[in-house]
Amino acid sequence: MKIAVDAMGGDNAPKEIIKGGIDAARLLRKGVEIVFIGPKERIQREIEENNGYNLPISTVNAEEVIDNNESPVKAIKNKKNSSMVIGLNLLKNKEVDAFISAGSTGAFMAGALLITGRIKGIDRPALASVIPTIKGGILLLDMGANTDVKPKNLLQFAVMGSIYSNKVLGIKNPKIALLNVGKEQEKGNLVTKEAYKLLCNEPSIHFIGNMEAREILQGNADILVCDGFSGNILLKAIEGVATTFFSVLKEEIKTSYISQLGGLLIKSHLKKFKKKFDYSEHGGAPFLGIKGVCIKCHGSSDASAIKNAILKGETYVEKNIIESFIKEFSDEGAI
Amino acid sequence: MKIAVDAMGGDNAPKEIIKGGIDAARLLRKGVEIVFIGPKERIQREIEENNGYNLPISTVNAEEVIDNNESPVKAIKNKKNSSMVIGLNLLKNKEVDAFISAGSTGAFMAGALLITGRIKGIDRPALASVIPTIKGGILLLDMGANTDVKPKNLLQFAVMGSIYSNKVLGIKNPKIALLNVGKEQEKGNLVTKEAYKLLCNEPSIHFIGNMEAREILQGNADILVCDGFSGNILLKAIEGVATTFFSVLKEEIKTSYISQLGGLLIKSHLKKFKKKFDYSEHGGAPFLGIKGVCIKCHGSSDASAIKNAILKGETYVEKNIIESFIKEFSDEGAI
Repeated sequence: MKIAVDAMGGDNAPKEIIKGGIDAARLLRKGVEIVFIGPKERIQREIEENNGYNLPISTVNAEEVIDNNESPVKAIKNKKNSSMVIGLNLLKNKEVDAFISAGSTGAFMAGALLITGRIKGIDRPALASVIPTIKGGILLLDMGANTDVKPKNLLQFAVMGSIYSNKVLGIKNPKIALLNVGKEQEKGNLVTKEAYKLLCNEPSIHFIGNMEAREILQGNADILVCDGFSGNILLKAIEGVATTFFSVLKEEIKTSYISQLGGLLIKSHLKKFKKKFDYSEHGGAPFLGIKGVCIKCHGSSDASAIKNAILKGETYVEKNIIESFIKEFSDEGAI
Repeated sequence: MKIAVDAMGGDNAPKEIIKGGIDAARLLRKGVEIVFIGPKERIQREIEENNGYNLPISTVNAEEVIDNNESPVKAIKNKKNSSMVIGLNLLKNKEVDAFISAGSTGAFMAGALLITGRIKGIDRPALASVIPTIKGGILLLDMGANTDVKPKNLLQFAVMGSIYSNKVLGIKNPKIALLNVGKEQEKGNLVTKEAYKLLCNEPSIHFIGNMEAREILQGNADILVCDGFSGNILLKAIEGVATTFFSVLKEEIKTSYISQLGGLLIKSHLKKFKKKFDYSEHGGAPFLGIKGVCIKCHGSSDASAIKNAILKGETYVEKNIIESFIKEFSDEGAI
């Protein structure tokens, strides 16, 4: 198995990306190899600095980089020598089994669709991400690939999420909820009201009804289905509140000697608490519905986040869920 | 000026509602009167218990109550003697100047539309709520009245929010942002992309562009415009994360003697921190676009939240912004 990593994608590229890849290479099963894509010499230097010799690592040269400010479709079409385009082409040609990038989300999605392509029967691939909850995590999809959806898309997200959750995350009969403004069936916008009915009538999934945003961190569902606009708002709201709370709490504790002492005494507990809600522990966001394992990491990913995404990617490939998707969605009379 | 209060609406009715009303009555300007709507005897008993004699308080009898599980429109049509319907009728007939309720949000909105009515030229009234930020607060609208909107509705929300923010909250030339999945103009769903253009071209407001959910608590805008579906998700996500964080932090601190001591030392700071992000400090949610001052309080409102909503209502009436809305929206060639 070969897992390709875009060495040039993300705010901390290439240093943290390569470090993460090397850390992962030490933990991967025998026969699994990391393929870094980027400027060969630069990558070699980082591998040397991190004592990454003798690990199952290879390099594919790529001289161009797509940055966040470029128009995604144009960048994919024009920058044939970028790490992103080369990586997705390797995936398409089955020269690698997975592609991981912390680069531009727009270019990643456009490239995955244009180069690697959709699985037949899946109208709209979805980005899925685990939100940490007090009971572990909930798989949110779509988190931003589709800002406008039809009810049928939400049903397909639910089916893909269910297969992924079962096979990759190891959850039997995962509980699926629909993100909504109220618990009752009749609540919501035109799309969710219609999607509710479709979800109720789909026998292959375990739909438990609507879920309001305030309940999510309680962890009473395994999968949360929504359009990419709301999903993105939700994810970033949780991220923003968490970040702001920690920084305001820190400032507040600094205001007196007594509270500084108090802060010291709870420091290790605060760290544990912070770790509980740390996204990067849960690996990257798989782009489900693409004909290949594509994982998008947060732009601010550090080595640890990249390492976790690679390890998740290994399971993703191993469980062969692309085949499961093809089987589920290509059936006669499928969704 | 008369401010009517639905004594029977909300999880803590009537006790906390009446206590909040009495607390407000002690602070209101001369000539402002509280009108409690609900079962007269019960209200009288609460007034006595809270030593509320000799305050500017009167009572209007209402024997029925609309609860959260009823169909909003049916309840409004059938329960003519409910505190909600009687209150909205008093408002419509100008026997009171404002109506405040912590009862069913659905019934409140349906009743305000059906009984009190829309201001001409405003297609969709919007519920507005202040989200506490590190710099004070941001006015979010719509927070749930309109789950499906057109770009034009978002423009009208922006204009209403701007007038309200200026006149009631005292913010000169308030900065308006559009809730979106990215900062760039071309980001978003079909509605926000179109709304962006309308907002750019409206001379009466100060539009500063798109805002992502993770930036909201930084407080760099005064008003955040969105559809009611996303607004509701956003608001409840913030609420849910805040609640979960405090309870998990509390549990975490309890796990050792040392951290318990640490917790004690930072207790007063935690309280200050919690107060900073406390919704109830900011009063209720005005339903903007209705021909009368309607304020919806959170179902779990305590006396302090009700008191704050009443005090906000007093300013709302005094500044006569209903007249400003009528003027702005009824002009020839208005929005």
